[in-house]
Amino acid sequence: ESAEIGARSAIIVSAGFSERGDAGRSHLQDEIKDFALRSGVRVCGPNCLGVANVKSGIWPSPTPPDANLKPGPIALVSHSGASAFGPLMTRAIEMGIGYSYIISTGNEADLESSDFIRYLLEEPDIRVIACFIEGFKDGRKFLEVARMALERDKRIVLIKVGRSEVGSKAALSHTAALTGSDAVHDAAFKQYGVIRTDDYDDLLQTAHLMAYSPPPFKDGVVVVSHSGGVNSLIADHLGQAGLNLPPLTEGAKEGLNSILGGVGWASNPADVTGFASRDEFSEILTLLEQEPDAGALVVATAGKASQADQVIDLKKRSAKPIIFLSTGGDGVAEGLARLKEAHIPLFYSPQGLAKGLRGFFDYHRQRAWIERADTATNGAHKGAQVRPQLPEGSLTLTEYEAKELLSRWGIPAAQEIRAYSLEEAIEASSTIGFPLALKLESPRILHKTEAAVIRLNVQDVEQLRIAYGEIVANGLKHSPESKGSPVLVQEMVTGGTEVIVGLSQDPHFGPILLFGLGGIFVEVFNDVAMRVCPITEPEAGEMVQEIRGAKLLQGFRGRPKGDIDALIDVLLAVSDMAGDLAHRQPELDINPLMVLPKGQGVKAVDALVTLGR
Amino acid sequence: ESAEIGARSAIIVSAGFSERGDAGRSHLQDEIKDFALRSGVRVCGPNCLGVANVKSGIWPSPTPPDANLKPGPIALVSHSGASAFGPLMTRAIEMGIGYSYIISTGNEADLESSDFIRYLLEEPDIRVIACFIEGFKDGRKFLEVARMALERDKRIVLIKVGRSEVGSKAALSHTAALTGSDAVHDAAFKQYGVIRTDDYDDLLQTAHLMAYSPPPFKDGVVVVSHSGGVNSLIADHLGQAGLNLPPLTEGAKEGLNSILGGVGWASNPADVTGFASRDEFSEILTLLEQEPDAGALVVATAGKASQADQVIDLKKRSAKPIIFLSTGGDGVAEGLARLKEAHIPLFYSPQGLAKGLRGFFDYHRQRAWIERADTATNGAHKGAQVRPQLPEGSLTLTEYEAKELLSRWGIPAAQEIRAYSLEEAIEASSTIGFPLALKLESPRILHKTEAAVIRLNVQDVEQLRIAYGEIVANGLKHSPESKGSPVLVQEMVTGGTEVIVGLSQDPHFGPILLFGLGGIFVEVFNDVAMRVCPITEPEAGEMVQEIRGAKLLQGFRGRPKGDIDALIDVLLAVSDMAGDLAHRQPELDINPLMVLPKGQGVKAVDALVTLGR
Repeated sequence: ESAEIGARSAIIVSAGFSERGDAGRSHLQDEIKDFALRSGVRVCGPNCLGVANVKSGIWPSPTPPDANLKPGPIALVSHSGASAFGPLMTRAIEMGIGYSYIISTGNEADLESSDFIRYLLEEPDIRVIACFIEGFKDGRKFLEVARMALERDKRIVLIKVGRSEVGSKAALSHTAALTGSDAVHDAAFKQYGVIRTDDYDDLLQTAHLMAYSPPPFKDGVVVVSHSGGVNSLIADHLGQAGLNLPPLTEGAKEGLNSILGGVGWASNPADVTGFASRDEFSEILTLLEQEPDAGALVVATAGKASQADQVIDLKKRSAKPIIFLSTGGDGVAEGLARLKEAHIPLFYSPQGLAKGLRGFFDYHRQRAWIERADTATNGAHKGAQVRPQLPEGSLTLTEYEAKELLSRWGIPAAQEIRAYSLEEAIEASSTIGFPLALKLESPRILHKTEAAVIRLNVQDVEQLRIAYGEIVANGLKHSPESKGSPVLVQEMVTGGTEVIVGLSQDPHFGPILLFGLGGIFVEVFNDVAMRVCPITEPEAGEMVQEIRGAKLLQGFRGRPKGDIDALIDVLLAVSDMAGDLAHRQPELDINPLMVLPKGQGVKAVDALVTLGR
Repeated sequence: ESAEIGARSAIIVSAGFSERGDAGRSHLQDEIKDFALRSGVRVCGPNCLGVANVKSGIWPSPTPPDANLKPGPIALVSHSGASAFGPLMTRAIEMGIGYSYIISTGNEADLESSDFIRYLLEEPDIRVIACFIEGFKDGRKFLEVARMALERDKRIVLIKVGRSEVGSKAALSHTAALTGSDAVHDAAFKQYGVIRTDDYDDLLQTAHLMAYSPPPFKDGVVVVSHSGGVNSLIADHLGQAGLNLPPLTEGAKEGLNSILGGVGWASNPADVTGFASRDEFSEILTLLEQEPDAGALVVATAGKASQADQVIDLKKRSAKPIIFLSTGGDGVAEGLARLKEAHIPLFYSPQGLAKGLRGFFDYHRQRAWIERADTATNGAHKGAQVRPQLPEGSLTLTEYEAKELLSRWGIPAAQEIRAYSLEEAIEASSTIGFPLALKLESPRILHKTEAAVIRLNVQDVEQLRIAYGEIVANGLKHSPESKGSPVLVQEMVTGGTEVIVGLSQDPHFGPILLFGLGGIFVEVFNDVAMRVCPITEPEAGEMVQEIRGAKLLQGFRGRPKGDIDALIDVLLAVSDMAGDLAHRQPELDINPLMVLPKGQGVKAVDALVTLGR
């Protein structure tokens, strides 16, 4: 009926669809989707609380309009209607945060959160899009929108549930959105400049900071408060978040000391004791704001009206981010109201402040990258598009085939020769030179160690004879169809650091590049870096640096430095391969890739590639 | 003058002492300390805001009494006066939390936080001691008090700054308290049932929970809210905190579904939609409270008066912990006031809730241990007190001496014989059997690999001859005084997992036992477990389980299971040794200790012991 009268869109508030988890109700939801496709009527919901256009005062939602909510440069997109029109609205009112829109997307039978975000990017007044996400229907689409947002300097700040398995299960039972691996989400968010927060208050305070603060001048934070104890807690949280508190210049120290006399502490954080409640506080603020290493200034006091006025006055004179942390106290309601009115970003705990600032600095760093990339290489690795002839159908390549495929993208491997007889193997050994590794090369045998068809460190022809015989015999025992398979005669690569380079296909985000140290480092410590493909050269460098075991490649304890440039080339090459072979959804393990000492390159020692149809 | 008129104690509010960091002012503070010792007048401060006895209305502090602050079963002890009478007081008032005392300890020239805590343990009305700590003057004393608190079921909840280096520096510049290694503090707190929190709000909400909640029945948490989105965020945080959300029984599911009809979700967390605002909510709460696996019940809704009344009513009928998470909303002020009045523990964010519950469960688990230990072994390992004859003065024992010393506490080592000539070495080889390790045993050469006086995997007599000659020659080249030193002929121990067992002397907490996997696991990943000595047997078992690499000892990827019982014996033996030799402050590295397959024990392969005078 709504289609018949010409409606272009519809909101379905009713619940009882796919969120109930039974087939009949999921089918009902599919009917909504079909209807939307057929009729062209775009549908929000079902199982949502609708959409509020706060700035125009249009609330076509079961939730009545709230006159206390002001319009503002933040738009809210939330799967959860109860969160959007509940804590995320009432807390925004308390914090003096204004919304342009509140959008509750529910089960997303048709329109999904990315569609709404895409729309919001076109609104010039919107600076921040705050989201409560239980799962993406299409992660790749979200990333496209996130990239556009980053390019336009629209900031996406979100909560994404599913950090723990328990939470994933709860989200699943709720809107039936698949949540995927949380670590992949984290990597994707970081890569695309999306700020992830943990809780309602964090989301709102960070969104407020992102909406009203100019970019930081540098990465340094200067802090001033009335208390050494408060300072030490703030410094503790900022330090844990990896933020930098630069020392004050001598000039600033002298200036501060001449105001403070014999009390307080002229450092960063600065402890100005009772001077935080006096006229001199303005002078102190000016002094600290002018510090050359102050990328942002944090003022932490109770929040009395006089303090608020001094900070608001400073804000008018400063192009730097000025952030207020209220420790609370009697009679601060008026001061806090003035700060809210003046859109000074406000925090209420050192921990919340540290999280907000971390997101703030991360976003602006990522954005600076984008801007540099635009003027330089445009981010993509300059590899020629490669379209090798590949057999059709799903298949797993043998080690030899896999390395041959990788060589098309310039990925070097240990030298190896296929031998179909002992004589050929001996001939190969004279070409490659001892010591050698021998491996039976059969598509029937994927786990070579288990089947005992691999011998390492073969030292001479005599050992080669024995090893060759055993490997072939074990192969036949394990799988008679391995008859006639060649034996791979391979250079033993030593003196390097074993790493893993992998490529997997994430159901949400597509090709994911993985890097880690080899062996139990990956298996026990899960010490890996991940990125959504394609990656840029700086991102490849960042991957190598961000694993905890990075120091093993940097000359740890007398080990030689690894050839990190060659490693970065491999990461970029795998990223290219993921793009060039996208139609076949390749998955890949180079395990180990041996990183040799600087200048000597890297060599793939073993590799496994699977291709889809 | 105060001593002359018979004062028993004094509060020194003035600042300008050791917190200023210069020698003259530290000297002034020493004078206060001397005065206290000499006169018997106990001093609080200097650089503090004094002490308030809230329950008796005595506020001998520069901060005027605040009539809004109610007396209650929580005492506050804080280095930072500005934190105690600032955010920790105003937020307590907002949250409806009552204090018995507020004690600001400042620079602690005489009385320190542990003295005040010790005093508070005697007050029958006090259930929780909340602390803001910048550093302990005497960590051991704090642990003694913490143990007494645990025995009396008085709960210590604290903020301890110094998690990051930046924070440590800030604390240092403030009260000049040494902060020590944060990881050691974490280990000590955990071991002694002290709950560590991160921020003002976390501290207060956790203290409130600990003050008013009965112990959990089990470790399971059942959650109910009006929203699937809220539930998924709660479940996510509880899951990340390692808390357990047991599934509902079939009976409860049926009961819930019969109330909910076709909406909501009858699981844990339970999504009861709009029924959270109806009369049936009482019935739902009763149903969930009676779940056998519900160790605690969390109710998460806006916090309207009707909801508050239903929860308060449930609390009257239940012996279980009932906790409220307010999502906020219009017109909840009255409901929240009633909840505060009824002392229902209140949280305002899923994250805060998860942290509070984690501390709550940890405390009660630790306390259950104490109770079991009292009736059983009393916790101490049953080793006879050992007092070996030891040379006097500070010294470092050679490897051979170190292992001999360790053998007094039953710690097994690789078989080894001292050889003073090649002939003796050959004789030793026939006793021990090849393969062997050879090491020059000289107190002048501590780094054997560097000096090239170690050879591993010596296979036969011929290799032994060569190795012996080289080692002795290299030793002389490195240090002529190594002339005449014996060569250690040692069994090569293979087929085990290398671990490290260490003992260090922490400046605050004394002997610290350390356990980790050997090699780069410790150096790169810092994957270690620590405990303050002495430890109990369950604690030793916990140490072995808590490192991330624990699975390598548990039969990971086809490796044999390690002899964990023998490993635990070594940990207990080292703890005993730390006690028996306390007068010599021993430090120790058994690196590696080889953990052989189950039933085959462990063997110390190398060891280093240093003793103080």
